Amino acid sequence: MWFTGLPASGKSTLARALRDELLKAKPTEVLDGDEVREYLSKGLGYTREDRDTNVRRIGFVARALARNGAIAIGAAISPYAAARDEVRELSKRDGVGFVEVHLDCPLETLVKRDPKGLYQKALAGQLKHFTGVDDPYQPPETPELRLDTSRLSVEACVVRLREVLAARGLP
Amino acid sequence: MWFTGLPASGKSTLARALRDELLKAKPTEVLDGDEVREYLSKGLGYTREDRDTNVRRIGFVARALARNGAIAIGAAISPYAAARDEVRELSKRDGVGFVEVHLDCPLETLVKRDPKGLYQKALAGQLKHFTGVDDPYQPPETPELRLDTSRLSVEACVVRLREVLAARGLP
Repeated sequence: MWFTGLPASGKSTLARALRDELLKAKPTEVLDGDEVREYLSKGLGYTREDRDTNVRRIGFVARALARNGAIAIGAAISPYAAARDEVRELSKRDGVGFVEVHLDCPLETLVKRDPKGLYQKALAGQLKHFTGVDDPYQPPETPELRLDTSRLSVEACVVRLREVLAARGLP
Repeated sequence: MWFTGLPASGKSTLARALRDELLKAKPTEVLDGDEVREYLSKGLGYTREDRDTNVRRIGFVARALARNGAIAIGAAISPYAAARDEVRELSKRDGVGFVEVHLDCPLETLVKRDPKGLYQKALAGQLKHFTGVDDPYQPPETPELRLDTSRLSVEACVVRLREVLAARGLP
């Protein structure tokens, strides 16, 4: 599963909530864009090239997990459609499923929510290359699922996600 | 499992032979140092820092696989003991086993074998930073297993490796 969306749209929160449910039935691993920067992507910055490289590496690990019977949940802003589509293609090549989930939350809600105060800093120009403010985000055109996290609770999102998995014979 | 050894010591060959056996009983994935450079470690070179970074990334993926019930076989020269020990420590932290296997083959045999002609190039000075010729290799002092691949056949090595796994309750 691949969660894409603007900062603070709920990717990490939702990935962990889903993992906690799925773990009851199947090995499940969250690959969080921020967390993997420690071991997998140290030194990468926030240029398009570096963001795409980060997406490629998460995709590599996710496919290795899926090939070996685990569910991998990638949770990264992944702002560029081409990089996400590359992971989709390589998943197909490897014979593993790919479910793209767009966490679609209006920017004004995110700015209001702003749990780490990063939108405020970005809007004030103190933080550069911030996706949604001064760095682009290309929403997926035909994701397997789109969830408006400004209107749906975490629990309701998890229900929707599990419906998509169930349709693929997963727990 | 972590295979370490000089170039052409048999890491990839042995990793694949072992995987083919283990796959009959358990999901198993080979993480080959050369292969992962395509997606995981593009752009890394052969300085100590870059080699260690490659080892860290393979270790990250291997642990994720092991945490989720698969056997991961890392096959990389991994010349520096500290980087290998770091993977060992993090495996312990994650509650997954770590079996270090030193493929110990005398340099003169490797130079004679030299399947890709790389030792010849390195000895002629046409290839720099070649482990065993002009780049260091720190053999592990107390690996779980040491195999002299100049004397043991691939089949015999696989038998020895499976004994170590069996002692840990693995197939």
